Amino acid sequence: MGMYGRDLLSLYEYDSDEIKSIINLALKLKNGVHPPSTLKGKNILALFEKPSTRTRISMEVATESLGGHFIYIDKTTTQLARGETLKDFALVTSRYVDLIAVRAYDHNDLVEISKWAEVPVVNMLTDRFHPLQALADVMTIIERKKGRVTIAFLGDGSANTCHSLMLASSKMGWEFRVGCPKALTPNPEVYKIACKSASNNKGSVLITDDPLEAAKDADVVYTDTWFSMGIKRSEERIKLLLPYQVNSKLLSHARKDVIVMHCLPWYIGEEITSDVAYGPKSVVWDQAENRLHTAKAVLLLLLTPGLKV
Amino acid sequence: MGMYGRDLLSLYEYDSDEIKSIINLALKLKNGVHPPSTLKGKNILALFEKPSTRTRISMEVATESLGGHFIYIDKTTTQLARGETLKDFALVTSRYVDLIAVRAYDHNDLVEISKWAEVPVVNMLTDRFHPLQALADVMTIIERKKGRVTIAFLGDGSANTCHSLMLASSKMGWEFRVGCPKALTPNPEVYKIACKSASNNKGSVLITDDPLEAAKDADVVYTDTWFSMGIKRSEERIKLLLPYQVNSKLLSHARKDVIVMHCLPWYIGEEITSDVAYGPKSVVWDQAENRLHTAKAVLLLLLTPGLKV
Amino acid sequence: MGMYGRDLLSLYEYDSDEIKSIINLALKLKNGVHPPSTLKGKNILALFEKPSTRTRISMEVATESLGGHFIYIDKTTTQLARGETLKDFALVTSRYVDLIAVRAYDHNDLVEISKWAEVPVVNMLTDRFHPLQALADVMTIIERKKGRVTIAFLGDGSANTCHSLMLASSKMGWEFRVGCPKALTPNPEVYKIACKSASNNKGSVLITDDPLEAAKDADVVYTDTWFSMGIKRSEERIKLLLPYQVNSKLLSHARKDVIVMHCLPWYIGEEITSDVAYGPKSVVWDQAENRLHTAKAVLLLLLTPGLKV
Repeated sequence: MGMYGRDLLSLYEYDSDEIKSIINLALKLKNGVHPPSTLKGKNILALFEKPSTRTRISMEVATESLGGHFIYIDKTTTQLARGETLKDFALVTSRYVDLIAVRAYDHNDLVEISKWAEVPVVNMLTDRFHPLQALADVMTIIERKKGRVTIAFLGDGSANTCHSLMLASSKMGWEFRVGCPKALTPNPEVYKIACKSASNNKGSVLITDDPLEAAKDADVVYTDTWFSMGIKRSEERIKLLLPYQVNSKLLSHARKDVIVMHCLPWYIGEEITSDVAYGPKSVVWDQAENRLHTAKAVLLLLLTPGLKV
Repeated sequence: MGMYGRDLLSLYEYDSDEIKSIINLALKLKNGVHPPSTLKGKNILALFEKPSTRTRISMEVATESLGGHFIYIDKTTTQLARGETLKDFALVTSRYVDLIAVRAYDHNDLVEISKWAEVPVVNMLTDRFHPLQALADVMTIIERKKGRVTIAFLGDGSANTCHSLMLASSKMGWEFRVGCPKALTPNPEVYKIACKSASNNKGSVLITDDPLEAAKDADVVYTDTWFSMGIKRSEERIKLLLPYQVNSKLLSHARKDVIVMHCLPWYIGEEITSDVAYGPKSVVWDQAENRLHTAKAVLLLLLTPGLKV
Repeated sequence: MGMYGRDLLSLYEYDSDEIKSIINLALKLKNGVHPPSTLKGKNILALFEKPSTRTRISMEVATESLGGHFIYIDKTTTQLARGETLKDFALVTSRYVDLIAVRAYDHNDLVEISKWAEVPVVNMLTDRFHPLQALADVMTIIERKKGRVTIAFLGDGSANTCHSLMLASSKMGWEFRVGCPKALTPNPEVYKIACKSASNNKGSVLITDDPLEAAKDADVVYTDTWFSMGIKRSEERIKLLLPYQVNSKLLSHARKDVIVMHCLPWYIGEEITSDVAYGPKSVVWDQAENRLHTAKAVLLLLLTPGLKV
């Protein structure tokens, strides 16, 4: 089954082969292979409810480089700010554009848009999921590691980044370990689905409040900010998460060739220390670059009839 | 006379044949006819002083789909926000772009820009007029009704939407009836001009405070929000306008094949009820889509020397 | 040496021949000569920390007209607004785009971005310099005056516009006089560098608090707002600067064929009177237009390997 015309809301809705297809296409594009199709004549509406750097620029450059047009819209400049419903927004804009991409606080808002839109809807981050990030993450890992990979995610296990990477890892048949405080474990429903995916693909998912158990012999150590957009800063939260900080001591428990990943932006001295963040094990700039290549692959696959990779 | 190089500020300045030319071109473009020219190399500056969804996206997609470039500018990000005059803004930007489109609170601001601009200026909505909407409205009606049409506009007769549709209807030789409270009748000057146009084109314009007199045997029932941008919400205003609500009871006085129109966004339960808004007589999504086709037609006609349709 | 891949931060870093090359290319483009290369496939990220009209639109039209794509970004919509460092911003966005243009309050912020960016960085105005403006200024002067020109800058000598034009003028071998209050003299370091450039190129730089000494027999009288972005309005400052107002009395001391320049926006009645601003000696609209042609030249030269003019 192709991806043409489908939504990309979490990664639930894509099977292992489909995820691998996206990555394969992204790898080819990165290596200079001529794109199998273009976005000529395609208009992509990108609605943002919160700040963005990597997602916005990578999606815009991906679209325009492939010949399409990217319409950046700040939600506050639309009638949504004056009370127009997401339903009406989706119904109307479907008449103008070929794909709607959304960055929203509430995942339910994304689902509501996708329910009414007559064109594909792509998640550019919600409180629950960040699938475009997870695709770039998988690509970055595949570029560096062969076979079955062990990923240790340290920090806020309930974050969108953790959820999406957990789903992606499970579908890839990898070992995914979350080291997080009991108060910040992954969403139970997401965890359940990830476990099912893992069992289907010979992967595994582990949640532990022991950071060393998570990090032990890991191929990849991943962390994310402790204060995602919408979460208020507090000393209490920092204290709770400090044991899960990615620092050189924690890394000493991982494999020697471990790579350190972060979706950015980071808060140096909180979830990650400066020496690690800017150190030789960090692959975050390549990881950020891969947002561009995976965005291109996703857009081409969703908007090109019959395209398979 | 062609439209090349002209402004589009209200619809005063276009005669019946010109309006029909725009609609004809829009209908052809909708039906897949190859555009008679392109906007290649053309830059369109779109200045917004208030929120927009349909106007902004339809104009942007129209421009970019025809090969031009659309520059979306929020007024607050320009030197206009720091006191630069509209005169200077118009004089300078005329050196950079091929057309200036403006959404402004005050119609006089638009007129001031058009006075100094050396390129065509297009009204993307002011407190007084919304000509791009009226063109899409006429197109939507022509797609569904033959011959002389009776339009009943219910609600705030002093709204820009009512003014522009009144002018367009008069030029089309149609019967236009406004059902509105005495306190919210159309601007007298606009009414006078519309009456003159109507008499020239065998149309008519009626203003009444009796909603049933307006709606009786109407082919089209049209309404707009009671709280346009800039108008403060109040219970008093709702009470005043409630008799003009478009609901199934009011529709029972119209023709059986009546179509219901609204420029969106709407406030369900105020100027229109949910059953009607999302019911089978409502054509609002097609009406919204026609913003795209009429925008394309307008831009091509204003920017292509010698183009006639 | 070509300009390919270089930054444009002030004008320190460009020698006389390079500045003349930019102007020559801009003049050719204005006269309809086919561009020597295109920006096809190039993405330009333009980050704005403050309002802009001329710079933003001229850069956007320049980019898009040459086949590139211009990404306008308001800083408040990025992760920079949430504390991401300029270093990280530069490192990440270098992976997505071909050039980063920045309008910032603090010149040091621009320098920090250029330090980390892996692509050329262009100054779109800081508190210290405005090189794109100075290039358009030089072009405007060259279009009208032959040989060695005398420029009198009146008003706030510590403004970015004065600094950049002082550097440009010195490199052109012109005579540059600043008439300004003692409290608002040019930055000493900039002055020192300008003097050195002037001496190398047979130009001169003079700072005086006597407006008539500055204006005497000048070919060009230039002024800028007394309240640049970030400076608070005060009666005291107006009083201090009033002797340096560009009015017909002051102009009577200049050459008869003097031209009056201003980078806009202006505050009529403050730094310039209405009769002069909109009078026959004023060349400000052509000066503003030249922003477009010089922007094109700069972008082509920085992004085209081997391009020389």
